[in-house]
Amino acid sequence: MKILGIDPSLRSTGYGIINAAGNEFAAIVAGEIKNPASLLPSRCLVKIADVVTQLIAQHQPEVMAIEGLVFVQNTKIAFTLGEVRGVILAAAAKSGLPIFEYAPRKVKQSVTGQGNAGKGQVAALIKAQLGLRELPPPDAADALAIALCHAQSTRGVQLQPPRQL
Amino acid sequence: MKILGIDPSLRSTGYGIINAAGNEFAAIVAGEIKNPASLLPSRCLVKIADVVTQLIAQHQPEVMAIEGLVFVQNTKIAFTLGEVRGVILAAAAKSGLPIFEYAPRKVKQSVTGQGNAGKGQVAALIKAQLGLRELPPPDAADALAIALCHAQSTRGVQLQPPRQL
Repeated sequence: MKILGIDPSLRSTGYGIINAAGNEFAAIVAGEIKNPASLLPSRCLVKIADVVTQLIAQHQPEVMAIEGLVFVQNTKIAFTLGEVRGVILAAAAKSGLPIFEYAPRKVKQSVTGQGNAGKGQVAALIKAQLGLRELPPPDAADALAIALCHAQSTRGVQLQPPRQL
Repeated sequence: MKILGIDPSLRSTGYGIINAAGNEFAAIVAGEIKNPASLLPSRCLVKIADVVTQLIAQHQPEVMAIEGLVFVQNTKIAFTLGEVRGVILAAAAKSGLPIFEYAPRKVKQSVTGQGNAGKGQVAALIKAQLGLRELPPPDAADALAIALCHAQSTRGVQLQPPRQL
């Protein structure tokens, strides 16, 4: 099963697609959608939506797993992160992908065995688990971790079932 | 100048387009994008994005005015409202529309003279100011109020300038 994992953020949304066959996992593609500070938030949203749509069209994942609600300091940050989530959810929904959501703690727990693991720790374990040659960039590693968490769990919150025809 | 006003919400996003010529204002179209409680949030986002994109293509407004940050009780609500804002901002940005944001208090102040006016009061004054035959539905009235606020003000927060070619 091909799983697209997404770690949403306005300036650096991580993405990673893995193939899961039983207990064998392989990374297909991973990266970060970088938006420079000079790019207006509205344009960042368009770019994120476009890249996610393109990834889905090109790699045809069967499911999307996305990071769930994180702790944020204030509602302004929640609004911004919500905006990013919105365009990503809409892109996946438009493609008819089932969507699952995992809490950050659950993702870390699933990959490292510790709910409060640091980003470096997640990247190192992802590298080992997927047999990567290099350490993936941090947000790409988080996205791969989310995809891996979905592959290993059936306890995510299902935001969208497969398309009903 | 044709102004598209938007009052974002997952279940009932209000929209209204007005034409402003000096101190003369005329409503072109107004309504509510209704999403029943049975529709998954991800599908609601797709519908909102599609309707806004269609409104822009059909009526060719020159600018979009959207309600700014509102007070919300918790970050979960902020995330949901952010998701709705995200797909709307991306739709407008994709069309190259300049985007302005107005605080709810400012919108009410501008239309009714009172920052804490109720929804009924806003709808009644919008009906009078735009010479409508009927009272618009509440979220459509709020969207028309946001468009009218933009027509009467130059003090909005500009989220996106006109497209740079």
